[in-house]
Amino acid sequence: MIERDFPARELKLYSSARSAGSRIDFNGREFLVEEATPEIFSDLDIALFSAGGEITKTLAPQAVERGCVVIDNSSAFRMDPEVPLIIPEINPHTAADHKGLIANPNCSTAVALMGLYPLHRLFGVKRFFAATYQAVSGTGAAAIKELDKQTRDWVEGNEIVNEVYPHQIAFNVLPHVDIFLEDGYTREELKMRNESAKIMEIPDLQVSCTCVRVPVFRAHSVAINAEFEKTVDLEEARRAIAGFPGSEMVDDPENNGYPMPLDYQGKIPCGVGRLRKDSAFDNGISFWVTGDQLWKGAALNTVQIAELLHKKGLVGVRASLSGN
Amino acid sequence: MIERDFPARELKLYSSARSAGSRIDFNGREFLVEEATPEIFSDLDIALFSAGGEITKTLAPQAVERGCVVIDNSSAFRMDPEVPLIIPEINPHTAADHKGLIANPNCSTAVALMGLYPLHRLFGVKRFFAATYQAVSGTGAAAIKELDKQTRDWVEGNEIVNEVYPHQIAFNVLPHVDIFLEDGYTREELKMRNESAKIMEIPDLQVSCTCVRVPVFRAHSVAINAEFEKTVDLEEARRAIAGFPGSEMVDDPENNGYPMPLDYQGKIPCGVGRLRKDSAFDNGISFWVTGDQLWKGAALNTVQIAELLHKKGLVGVRASLSGN
Repeated sequence: MIERDFPARELKLYSSARSAGSRIDFNGREFLVEEATPEIFSDLDIALFSAGGEITKTLAPQAVERGCVVIDNSSAFRMDPEVPLIIPEINPHTAADHKGLIANPNCSTAVALMGLYPLHRLFGVKRFFAATYQAVSGTGAAAIKELDKQTRDWVEGNEIVNEVYPHQIAFNVLPHVDIFLEDGYTREELKMRNESAKIMEIPDLQVSCTCVRVPVFRAHSVAINAEFEKTVDLEEARRAIAGFPGSEMVDDPENNGYPMPLDYQGKIPCGVGRLRKDSAFDNGISFWVTGDQLWKGAALNTVQIAELLHKKGLVGVRASLSGN
Repeated sequence: MIERDFPARELKLYSSARSAGSRIDFNGREFLVEEATPEIFSDLDIALFSAGGEITKTLAPQAVERGCVVIDNSSAFRMDPEVPLIIPEINPHTAADHKGLIANPNCSTAVALMGLYPLHRLFGVKRFFAATYQAVSGTGAAAIKELDKQTRDWVEGNEIVNEVYPHQIAFNVLPHVDIFLEDGYTREELKMRNESAKIMEIPDLQVSCTCVRVPVFRAHSVAINAEFEKTVDLEEARRAIAGFPGSEMVDDPENNGYPMPLDYQGKIPCGVGRLRKDSAFDNGISFWVTGDQLWKGAALNTVQIAELLHKKGLVGVRASLSGN
């Protein structure tokens, strides 16, 4: 918020009853974390939700009822046709239709689309295949600790314990992110399919994805093979990505230049590289995109949505209508 | 060789002049490593080459000239139309046409085909997309040491040094295996395309691949989306893979069951899991395959080729013709 100079009059921090009462130092001031109850939302213009889907389902409608605009980072409402699902660089216009609730997309989808959408604008994407290389930070703080601890235990010759993941993540890869669904895909893979179609507004988009957890601390990568309506042109494609806000080209094979998670941890833009004509599509492009999903796939995108609402005057209106 | 009870009368070990003179304990006997010169091949029936492409190009024809059958693990002759490229479970019949030289396939290709070929026999593969998760062991002993050392240095807070790879491999992923070619693909990605077509004997097979190095010590994994001529049936597909020699199904999502590199290091069969109807192809199957590429992609496959030659009486014939 400070980095982006977000125009907030006041910042309030809320949590579940369990964590309430703790204090957080931020920007030279100490904040008391209070319990999130339905009543608090009467005084708030925007609430950035980053709780689980279940909490969001209960609390978000109560917030909206009280005139507070909710930007939610869970998957609870993302596919609700009444709820805009927004990446501000891609579909900011959908914010105008909000009914109090706006969803923030899945992290690997957000990273993938920062490479794919500029190409879609040029050539019209019909179908894409994706394989992800997802960092443990996508699972949360406990998973970061687990990779750290497993690595140290491995070095010290101690027994390796799995608590967060069902299998060891250090020196291993798990083709398993989120729960398995009936058709054999995981829910994470389904998000890539459904959310890509919704955000890019391509109802008949065909997507097949394999989501894989890798022993990387932070920043997701995605390998994509995309098929387009129109004849593709690599030079145009490169220019489009390089000129797209929030994306940058890192594609210098001669000097071993390509985006990698280590270079993108803590970095705001997503990096696109390995751009090439796809050898298994007539009009296809393959590429590789890396981004710190804690930024583009979560916190940054949420704040960007709040900025967008503020700029377009889409916040505070309902708050004043709510009668509080 | 011992594990498989290979019917060798004698085993001789050869190396470059630099390593010659060293001694290796094997099966309770000490072997002297001798220098590989053209002359040695006069006394040999089969030579298993695992040197670089350049050494093979010089020495292999000299061996063949002397009546020795060469099974080569480099990429030097793999795409030569005169040279059979063999995975014994897939195309053993091509051994009959050998002219003294037989090639062993690329490691990630071999692992991928152990899952794909049983499906091809049922449904006829037209096209596939692959993304790899390749272990450092594919690069060699120095790379294994590098991942080990970088990990220890990270734990101890020391500076991390890159010698084998152009970038840190610990806690990172590199979309870069082998050298880059003009079309933007790497040579490793081209091998997946060309060798798959040759081994499965599908000249017009379309393949697009992204090869990625991950911080795993041993065993490669590949995520594959494959399109087929015929309507696919998942139960038939499962049975075909489970019944295919050298492959096994590990596909129990409810119990977090899928193949992972940690479970496949040192294991002979390749594991196939995450089998599902592909959501972006009309007749497609997505799956995940893991295998210890030091086995199926290298040593094991090479010995299997030697066994095949022996069983079919395809060795020793030329040796006796050579006049030595």
